Amino acid sequence: MEARLSFDDLKGILPDAVWIGDETITVTGVSGLGESKAGDLAFAGDAKLAVAAITAGASVILVPADFAGTPRPGQLFGRVNNPSWAMALVCERIEAELRPRPEPGIHPSAVIDPRARIDASATIGPLCVIEEGVEIGPHVYLEAHVFVGRFTRIGAKTMIHANTSIYGYSVIGSRVLMQSGAVIGGDGFGFESSVQGHTKIAQVGRVVLEDDVEVGANSTIDRARLSETRIGRGTKIDNLVQVGHNSIIGRHCFLCAFVGISGTTTIGDFVVMAGQSATSGHLSIGDGAKVGGQSGVTKNIPAGALVTGTHAMAFQLERRTQVLIRRLPQMAKQLRELESYVNGG
Amino acid sequence: MEARLSFDDLKGILPDAVWIGDETITVTGVSGLGESKAGDLAFAGDAKLAVAAITAGASVILVPADFAGTPRPGQLFGRVNNPSWAMALVCERIEAELRPRPEPGIHPSAVIDPRARIDASATIGPLCVIEEGVEIGPHVYLEAHVFVGRFTRIGAKTMIHANTSIYGYSVIGSRVLMQSGAVIGGDGFGFESSVQGHTKIAQVGRVVLEDDVEVGANSTIDRARLSETRIGRGTKIDNLVQVGHNSIIGRHCFLCAFVGISGTTTIGDFVVMAGQSATSGHLSIGDGAKVGGQSGVTKNIPAGALVTGTHAMAFQLERRTQVLIRRLPQMAKQLRELESYVNGG
Amino acid sequence: MEARLSFDDLKGILPDAVWIGDETITVTGVSGLGESKAGDLAFAGDAKLAVAAITAGASVILVPADFAGTPRPGQLFGRVNNPSWAMALVCERIEAELRPRPEPGIHPSAVIDPRARIDASATIGPLCVIEEGVEIGPHVYLEAHVFVGRFTRIGAKTMIHANTSIYGYSVIGSRVLMQSGAVIGGDGFGFESSVQGHTKIAQVGRVVLEDDVEVGANSTIDRARLSETRIGRGTKIDNLVQVGHNSIIGRHCFLCAFVGISGTTTIGDFVVMAGQSATSGHLSIGDGAKVGGQSGVTKNIPAGALVTGTHAMAFQLERRTQVLIRRLPQMAKQLRELESYVNGG
Repeated sequence: MEARLSFDDLKGILPDAVWIGDETITVTGVSGLGESKAGDLAFAGDAKLAVAAITAGASVILVPADFAGTPRPGQLFGRVNNPSWAMALVCERIEAELRPRPEPGIHPSAVIDPRARIDASATIGPLCVIEEGVEIGPHVYLEAHVFVGRFTRIGAKTMIHANTSIYGYSVIGSRVLMQSGAVIGGDGFGFESSVQGHTKIAQVGRVVLEDDVEVGANSTIDRARLSETRIGRGTKIDNLVQVGHNSIIGRHCFLCAFVGISGTTTIGDFVVMAGQSATSGHLSIGDGAKVGGQSGVTKNIPAGALVTGTHAMAFQLERRTQVLIRRLPQMAKQLRELESYVNGG
Repeated sequence: MEARLSFDDLKGILPDAVWIGDETITVTGVSGLGESKAGDLAFAGDAKLAVAAITAGASVILVPADFAGTPRPGQLFGRVNNPSWAMALVCERIEAELRPRPEPGIHPSAVIDPRARIDASATIGPLCVIEEGVEIGPHVYLEAHVFVGRFTRIGAKTMIHANTSIYGYSVIGSRVLMQSGAVIGGDGFGFESSVQGHTKIAQVGRVVLEDDVEVGANSTIDRARLSETRIGRGTKIDNLVQVGHNSIIGRHCFLCAFVGISGTTTIGDFVVMAGQSATSGHLSIGDGAKVGGQSGVTKNIPAGALVTGTHAMAFQLERRTQVLIRRLPQMAKQLRELESYVNGG
Repeated sequence: MEARLSFDDLKGILPDAVWIGDETITVTGVSGLGESKAGDLAFAGDAKLAVAAITAGASVILVPADFAGTPRPGQLFGRVNNPSWAMALVCERIEAELRPRPEPGIHPSAVIDPRARIDASATIGPLCVIEEGVEIGPHVYLEAHVFVGRFTRIGAKTMIHANTSIYGYSVIGSRVLMQSGAVIGGDGFGFESSVQGHTKIAQVGRVVLEDDVEVGANSTIDRARLSETRIGRGTKIDNLVQVGHNSIIGRHCFLCAFVGISGTTTIGDFVVMAGQSATSGHLSIGDGAKVGGQSGVTKNIPAGALVTGTHAMAFQLERRTQVLIRRLPQMAKQLRELESYVNGG
C-alpha cells in the first residue's frame, strides 16, 4: 500500500528504535517482506525472517533488536524489541491518513429524531437513521446508512461502519468498533411450540457491548429474552459470528469467523473460539479455555482446557483419535487376520 | 429489563392465573429467576425451578399450577399451567410498549416509485426504497433502509427490520417477520463451467415466503433458477442461514443459525435442522426429521428420523461411534496385545 | 416464472436448434420439466430426463440433439447440443426483461462527494453514498443503499446490489457482480495480545477483486494488513463466505456458502471449496484441488487433490474411514471376543 514517511517521521513513531544505514531514505509504501520493493517499509518478525531481510527489496526493514545483519547501501534497518508491533505503530499513523475521521457534525441527509441526544463532537454520516431517545457520546462516528433504534446508548469514541443495524435499547460502550453489516439486538430465537406450530416468545431484553469490543462484518448478536446478552470488555468478534440470546461472553475473548454461540451460554475471560466452532446452549466455558476450529462444545468446559472435535474432547485425545481414525482400515485388517487365526487355529 | 405493570395489568394479561400473596405490588422489571431483584417479575418453569422461587429476589413469580410453596411477605405468586408461556404473554405486552408500531404513512425520506401500491395503513420508514410495481398490504411495517425490488408483493402485517434487501418479484406472505440484514431473492449460485471458467446461468425464478415465516438477521434465501424457492408457512429461520436456489422447505420447520440448505433440497414439515448443519443438494428430508448440530446430510432422510454426524447417520449409531472413537487408543492397544500373543504363542 | 416469447424469439436466441412440432406456440412461462404446464418452456438435460419430456406438460421443451422422441400435437421440441445451456440463453433474455438496467444517471437522493469521478454511462441508484476520490467506470450499476468508501475504483459494467458496503481503497474489476449485503474491505482480524488484552493492529492494505468475480449475499472479504487480499479473475463466491486478510484466491475458483478462508491463505486456480469447508491460516491449496463439504484444511493441499473430513484427508481414505467408523461397534465386539478366546483358551 502507498504511504509517505520521512526518516524523521519514523524516529517520531519509534523513538526507541536503533537505526543503522541510510538515513536519507523516504518510505513510499508498506508491504510484506517477501514482496517488498524499493521505497517500501517492511518488517522481519523473528531472527529466521531477519535473514530474509538481507535479500528483501524493501528500503527500510524493522528487525529484531538482536539481529546482527547490516543493511545494503541505500537501505535502512531499525532494530526494535517487537518488529511486528513496531510495524503496527507505523501502520496506525498511515491508517489515520488513509482514513481520516471526518469533521464533527450531522450530515444533512441523516434522519434524526428530535428527541435523540447527540454530542456535538460526534460525526453522523450520510443517510443514518437515529430514533427517539438515542444517546450518542463524544467523538462517536457513524459512517453511513447506520440504523440506531430507540433509546440505544453509544459511548465515547465508538466507530460504526456503514449499513449496520442496532435495535432499540442496546447499550454500546466506549471505543467499540463495529464493521459493516453487523446486527445488534435482533430478536432472540425463542418460540413456544405445539403441533399447531411455533408461537413467538417476545424478547424484551437487550444487548450490552462493553468498552473496547469489536464486532466483525455481518455478525449478529441477539437480544435477551428478559435481561441481557452481554459481550465483555475488550472481546473481539470476527466476521459472520452469531451470539444467541441471553449469552454472557467474558472479557478479552476471541470469537473467530462463523463461531456460533447458542442461547444462554456463559463464557469466561480470555476464551478463544476458533473458526466455525460452536456451543450447544445452556453450558459454560471457563476462563482461558480454547476451542479448536469446527469443534462443537456439548458439555461444560473447565478453565484452561483445550478442546477439539465435533463433540469436543481434550485436544491430546482428539489428536490421537484422528491418527487412529486414519489407521482404521489397518486395524480392521488386523482384526480379520486375528479372527481367521483363532478360528483356523 | 425495565417495565411497569400493576396487579390489575397482570390479571388482565393472565385471567386464568391463581394469585397468592401481596396484591399491592407493582412490577418494575422482568428478569431470569436467578438474577431477579425486588420489583422484578420472573417465572419458575418447572417444579425444580419453583423451589428456587422461594429464595429468589423477584417480587412476582409465575409458578406451576401444582407448586405448593407460598410467597414471602411483600411477594406475589401467580399459579399458571405453563409459567414460561404466561411469562411470554406478559412480555408481549411489555414489548408492545418498548417497541410501539409507528403511525401509518410513508416517511418523506423514503424513495417510492409512483407505480408502487402501498396500503394506507402501512408504515414505510425513513430511507426505504420501493421500486416499480411493488404491492404492500395493510399494516405492513418497513423499519428503515429497506430495499424492495420491482413487482415484489408483501402481505398484511408483515414487519421488516432495517437494512434488509428484497430482490424483485419476491412474494412475501402475511405476518412475516424479517430481521435486519436479511437478503431475499439473491441470484441462485448456478454456472455453466468449462476450462475457460464459469458462465453465469440467469436465475429467472423467485422466492416465496408463506405466511408467518420468520427470517433471521443476515440470513440469505436465493431465488430459483426457473420457478420457486419456497419457505412453508410458520417456518422459523434463525440468523445467518443460507437457503439455496430451488429448495422447498415445508411448514413449521426450524432452521437454526448457520444452517446451509443447498440447491434443490426438499424438506418436509416440522423438520428441525440444528445449528451449523447442512445438506448437500438434490435430496429430501421427511416430515418431522431432526438433524443434529454440525451434521452433514448427504442422503435422503426418512420422516421422523434423528440423524447426526458429518456424514449424518442414525443418532443412536453416531452416539455409540463417538464413544468408540474416544476408545480407539485402547482398542489399538488391545489389537497389539492380541497380535503379540498370537505371534508369540 | 412468467415470460413471453414467440417462436421467432426462440429462433433468434437459439439459431442452431432444430425445431420439431408446433411452431405456432407462444411461451408464457418457464419451469422445471416435472412441474411444467401448458405454455411453459422447459428443458430435458439428458437422455434419461428426455423420456420424461414425452409426458411433461410444457409446450416447448429443449432436448438433447440425439433425442429421438417426437412432440405431441400442440407441442414443440428444440434439439440442441446442451439443453441446460440453451435454457440459460433463453433465461438470459427473460432476465433482461424482468430486471431491466435503469437509465444512466445519478439518483437525486444519492450522496456523492464532488471529488468522486463517475462515468456518465453509470447508474447510481437511490440513497447510495460515494465518498471522495472514488472512480466509477462505464455502465456500472449501483442498485440502492450502496456505500463506496474513499478512493475505491470500480471497473466497467460492474453491478452492485442493495445494502452493500465497500470500504475505502478497494479495487473492483470489470463485470464484477456483488449480491446484497456483501462487505468488501473490512478490517482484517489482527491483534497484538497480552495479559492486558488485545490491541488492534492497523490494517492498511486493500481488497482487489479482479474482473468477472461474483460475491454472494452477506459475504465478507477483509482487507490486508499491509498489501492485498486478492480474488482472482472469474472466481465465484457464494453467500455468507468469509475471506480473511492477506489471502490470495486464484482464478475461476468456487467458494460455496459458509466457506471460511483464514488469513494469509494462498489458493490456486480452479479450486472448489464445498459448503462450510474452511482453511486454517498460512497454508496453500494447489490448482484444481477440491475440498469436500464441512472439511477443515489444516495442511498444504497439492494441486488436483480431493480432500475431505474435519482434518481434511484424501477422499478415498476418508470414505473408507467413514465406513469403518460406522463399523466400530462391531469391531469392538470382535476385539472383546478375541480377548475372551485368548484369555480363556
